[in-house]
Amino acid sequence: MSGNSFGKIFKLTTFGESHGVAIGGIIDGCPAGLEIDTEKVQEDLNRRRPGQSAIVTQRKEPDTVEFLSGLFEGKSTGTPIGFTIKNANQKSKDYSHIKDTYRPSHADYTYDEKYGVRDYRGGGRSSARETASRVVAGSIAKQVLKDVQIIAFVSSVGKLELDKDFSELDYSEIEKNPVRCPDAATAAEMERYIKEVRADGDTVGGTVQCIIQNVPKGLGEPVFDKLHAELGKAMLSINAVKGFEYGSGFEGTKMRGSEHNDQFNKDGSTKTNLSGGIQGGISNGMDIYFKVAFKPVATLMQKQTTINSKGEEVDMQGKGRHDPCVVPRAVPIVESMAALVLADYLLQNKSSKI
Amino acid sequence: MSGNSFGKIFKLTTFGESHGVAIGGIIDGCPAGLEIDTEKVQEDLNRRRPGQSAIVTQRKEPDTVEFLSGLFEGKSTGTPIGFTIKNANQKSKDYSHIKDTYRPSHADYTYDEKYGVRDYRGGGRSSARETASRVVAGSIAKQVLKDVQIIAFVSSVGKLELDKDFSELDYSEIEKNPVRCPDAATAAEMERYIKEVRADGDTVGGTVQCIIQNVPKGLGEPVFDKLHAELGKAMLSINAVKGFEYGSGFEGTKMRGSEHNDQFNKDGSTKTNLSGGIQGGISNGMDIYFKVAFKPVATLMQKQTTINSKGEEVDMQGKGRHDPCVVPRAVPIVESMAALVLADYLLQNKSSKI
Amino acid sequence: MSGNSFGKIFKLTTFGESHGVAIGGIIDGCPAGLEIDTEKVQEDLNRRRPGQSAIVTQRKEPDTVEFLSGLFEGKSTGTPIGFTIKNANQKSKDYSHIKDTYRPSHADYTYDEKYGVRDYRGGGRSSARETASRVVAGSIAKQVLKDVQIIAFVSSVGKLELDKDFSELDYSEIEKNPVRCPDAATAAEMERYIKEVRADGDTVGGTVQCIIQNVPKGLGEPVFDKLHAELGKAMLSINAVKGFEYGSGFEGTKMRGSEHNDQFNKDGSTKTNLSGGIQGGISNGMDIYFKVAFKPVATLMQKQTTINSKGEEVDMQGKGRHDPCVVPRAVPIVESMAALVLADYLLQNKSSKI
Amino acid sequence: MSGNSFGKIFKLTTFGESHGVAIGGIIDGCPAGLEIDTEKVQEDLNRRRPGQSAIVTQRKEPDTVEFLSGLFEGKSTGTPIGFTIKNANQKSKDYSHIKDTYRPSHADYTYDEKYGVRDYRGGGRSSARETASRVVAGSIAKQVLKDVQIIAFVSSVGKLELDKDFSELDYSEIEKNPVRCPDAATAAEMERYIKEVRADGDTVGGTVQCIIQNVPKGLGEPVFDKLHAELGKAMLSINAVKGFEYGSGFEGTKMRGSEHNDQFNKDGSTKTNLSGGIQGGISNGMDIYFKVAFKPVATLMQKQTTINSKGEEVDMQGKGRHDPCVVPRAVPIVESMAALVLADYLLQNKSSKI
Repeated sequence: MSGNSFGKIFKLTTFGESHGVAIGGIIDGCPAGLEIDTEKVQEDLNRRRPGQSAIVTQRKEPDTVEFLSGLFEGKSTGTPIGFTIKNANQKSKDYSHIKDTYRPSHADYTYDEKYGVRDYRGGGRSSARETASRVVAGSIAKQVLKDVQIIAFVSSVGKLELDKDFSELDYSEIEKNPVRCPDAATAAEMERYIKEVRADGDTVGGTVQCIIQNVPKGLGEPVFDKLHAELGKAMLSINAVKGFEYGSGFEGTKMRGSEHNDQFNKDGSTKTNLSGGIQGGISNGMDIYFKVAFKPVATLMQKQTTINSKGEEVDMQGKGRHDPCVVPRAVPIVESMAALVLADYLLQNKSSKI
Repeated sequence: MSGNSFGKIFKLTTFGESHGVAIGGIIDGCPAGLEIDTEKVQEDLNRRRPGQSAIVTQRKEPDTVEFLSGLFEGKSTGTPIGFTIKNANQKSKDYSHIKDTYRPSHADYTYDEKYGVRDYRGGGRSSARETASRVVAGSIAKQVLKDVQIIAFVSSVGKLELDKDFSELDYSEIEKNPVRCPDAATAAEMERYIKEVRADGDTVGGTVQCIIQNVPKGLGEPVFDKLHAELGKAMLSINAVKGFEYGSGFEGTKMRGSEHNDQFNKDGSTKTNLSGGIQGGISNGMDIYFKVAFKPVATLMQKQTTINSKGEEVDMQGKGRHDPCVVPRAVPIVESMAALVLADYLLQNKSSKI
Repeated sequence: MSGNSFGKIFKLTTFGESHGVAIGGIIDGCPAGLEIDTEKVQEDLNRRRPGQSAIVTQRKEPDTVEFLSGLFEGKSTGTPIGFTIKNANQKSKDYSHIKDTYRPSHADYTYDEKYGVRDYRGGGRSSARETASRVVAGSIAKQVLKDVQIIAFVSSVGKLELDKDFSELDYSEIEKNPVRCPDAATAAEMERYIKEVRADGDTVGGTVQCIIQNVPKGLGEPVFDKLHAELGKAMLSINAVKGFEYGSGFEGTKMRGSEHNDQFNKDGSTKTNLSGGIQGGISNGMDIYFKVAFKPVATLMQKQTTINSKGEEVDMQGKGRHDPCVVPRAVPIVESMAALVLADYLLQNKSSKI
Repeated sequence: MSGNSFGKIFKLTTFGESHGVAIGGIIDGCPAGLEIDTEKVQEDLNRRRPGQSAIVTQRKEPDTVEFLSGLFEGKSTGTPIGFTIKNANQKSKDYSHIKDTYRPSHADYTYDEKYGVRDYRGGGRSSARETASRVVAGSIAKQVLKDVQIIAFVSSVGKLELDKDFSELDYSEIEKNPVRCPDAATAAEMERYIKEVRADGDTVGGTVQCIIQNVPKGLGEPVFDKLHAELGKAMLSINAVKGFEYGSGFEGTKMRGSEHNDQFNKDGSTKTNLSGGIQGGISNGMDIYFKVAFKPVATLMQKQTTINSKGEEVDMQGKGRHDPCVVPRAVPIVESMAALVLADYLLQNKSSKI
């Protein structure tokens, strides 16, 4: 039950620690006969890659995906797609100084409590490096989804919020700035703030918003596997995520039913969309939208006092090259997890009617 | 993949429409040899039952659980626990007036899109009546969990928020008022407001907070099945839920890492608990706490204009006895889903070490 | 992981002990919009029912199925189909004499070793009574399968074998004799032999053969979930089964490849069918056929010496009304399990191609 | 539902075609803290490897396993164990001559029917090369099982049967001859016969018997996931398998209950063991034993007439280096699948009691 798989029909299983030989995964259940553009997969990986801009970690990781199976003459064959991404950094460092140290708000302590042993080099399996495998699979899931559009962007950094409705945004702006915020002015402010935080050796949180357009009606399962429940789980499984809301979200709790109900147009679309494109756990064809909360990265470039595995107080000093704010690099990960959920439900739905 | 099951080892599968013969379920994987108090199960069901106070729906549903298997001489036998709850109302009404009508912000339209057919009597499978089965299973899960305490309460109704930290609350107050808010003064205000909303034929949303104490360390699985990801999915699977946050939640995104990191005490506990009792997806022994957002109930006692299955505009008038605010009755459901998640991870964890 | 569910998309979960209130189950994943003939389900149940002929157990169990959900106006709705079958015998006896006795070649000893507790009344969960729930689900699975024909019959009783190839048999004979053997002369011999064995207070084993015709090509999954692997598991999960072979089976091991290979006709059918309708785990459109081995029933109407839970030798005397030979009543169970496997793969296959 | 995973807690997922870059897999759920001897894994792989003796295929495949994750300082960490085995032959040949040809009794035709596309180089995913990944995982499963002994050997080749009870055999003989039959005289006969068959350009089938000793009591799940049902599925999932029987098997169907029942000794062991170590689907601590039927390999070194994808008759001539008899190399695969089943149930069983 080790929880390294995601999805029921379109299913990803991942492996790999940040400082082992390689990370990678197996995508099982990709339907046969789909043309797969592996260059697009690498492009998505590059959007997650360290070192892509001045405001993310400057680690050198080429993150090149190698496909080992499941593709033949440019198409999926219906058999499992195995892939690996080599770890560049694996032998470069001495980790003895953190071997027994529990970093605050990391998974070091809980892994030791759960397993009794731990690969202490750079976070091991709890490292966000694992999400590179999700981007590979998510990028293929997008190709399964064809006309469905999944767009994610940074909607806040610390207290700086993008205060426009998503319908007013120009999504083509997203990739034009290193923050991945679709409003150039807000993006510039956010970038300045991230640099300020980094200069303090500190980190800051933020939110990512995601919009899914052109969703077929009828996706999602009633009761436990509601579409938004699985989207929520998918997002909450990303490192550093503390919250998820869709449609009217937490603000909607303050409204009355008479304000909140989405009135129908005659074609089945709705005049408003506080439901967020999902009713009773099933897509209704309107835009799905949701927001994901990321806490500030726990690794600081400051001295901190903590404990070791013997319960002794020790000082630790962050070293290396870390992200001052995780949300810009989280954008492709959010998209990927959304794509995995949608592709899986699209395939599941094929057997819902006679 | 119809999504009527929850859990991997301690696993609940439910069935039943609101106006069929009965609802019920099967609990598979309850360990053998556990003393089961079936009266406690009925008590938990009574907390969810309609008609328990002046501010909830006045429908008459006795909601008596009957156990059919899996218990013998007061103990679980390790075999599946089958149970049913009869539907009292099943033949009492004429539903022809809503047969072809799509109620706004309900699941009528999406069920028709997904399945092509629909049991149109009172919500069918999408009715919150299904959650009674969850309470039965959750109540048994609590007995599996023994010393783990799960406490849920209403933390807001519309814009009325309980503005105290959970550590300052007296949980013994919760069941003393019909709102299930642990602060008597706030509860009284909330009750007044719910009555006002009801008098308008309207409804209002709210939030439920849940605290889990005495959690064993090491529960939860890294990567996709993080403890909070599964808790999030569990909560988002409850009818009318729009959001979930745990620990510092959405507020935490505004903080810097240096404020947000939880410093260790020498015994492995932490001085603060912004992590919400979970690090890297695994429990660290501190209190787990989270908040769940419920939208206002979509069924109004007002006239609304909507469409029917032919795309024609029709008027509809809410009839019957509905909840003006869902959160008081949602409290035992939130507890139950939390118990299901925790019991399942407790059992899963038994095989994580040699 | 308690193993009370079968199937991935068309999924049956069962509950119930032989002497509890009721047995029953939930069928999840039946596609919506299917006309369900519930009388056919009862007819299949009647074929498994005790007391139907002179050569089976004379217990009185009406075995009436009650459907609780998932059907509406004669059709499946895509929601779970819950059902129960009341136990007629539940309070009729005193079981104190077998409470601590381990019957030879039964599951009493192993249940006690596994669970520490046991419902000792008449076999509890290990009773073949559980298979009635499989017949309910299998009968609905047959309706999902439409034109696929599943025909099972008794192919041997003890050393008496039906020595005709299945292509020479008249299947309309099967239900005309109590043994369910399609050859009248052999059936008469078998019946005589079963009566003789019963007169001795003894029991005897036998085999059931099953033929599946009109199977769509492409069902089954390569590698672990080969169609015949899942059929084998399904059959081996039936009480008293000791073996399974399909196509050429154990005899095929003695052949050379040049004799065993099935040559193609131009239309893709094959001149011979030693493959048994499955190649590489996937159906090829030819008849699927297999044989299932049932051991003699362990409950004898003779005195036996055995042990109790304290390890003391005790005498036991079979009482009541038991089957001298299980295969006639096993026929509808074999059919049902085959139907469950096929229906599940039919639905799974919908997502194998783009 | 593509069926490339096996197991519930100790779970193997495999990928890879015979002529792609590599095959491999992910083992998820190996408990943490287990010392893993990777050299033993390579030794088991060598027992399956082509070219190990004169009577198996002479293909050159070094079959070296590389572990990519999940092991640290000689121990399992509880995280997924990823591994690959490079394909040596991947670019060495021209396959255009078989591109559109459907080989008799192979999976070419059914793969095309199922998926519409196919990696036609040397069997692709349907190649028995995939079983190398099972041996890697099975070898680690054996290390999880510690004192449990799993011994497989060849019990027949064509009509040549080893006619001794397994209790009379000297298992240390198994690896001393290329046939892997524990009786030297019978092995010599079998070897002679295999060479004769090969000289004819033909192939022959056979059986493998497997004995499992020192099995803890209580493994297996009642109802659908009986221990022998899962063993049966595991064996039937191996390429070329046509049948499975355990304990008294098909012979047991001819017996009377009074002969077949295993009488207890006072310590709970049984005087005979026709039950094959399993009662009611659960291990009773006695030896588990079963037999697996393998058909003759379908690839012949003879000319055969067959069809192509256009339905035209074509001649084909077997080329290359193929096994005249699959059973000697199947021995470690049978052991591996048995180990996967047992390890999984061992871990599952941890949550069966309170």
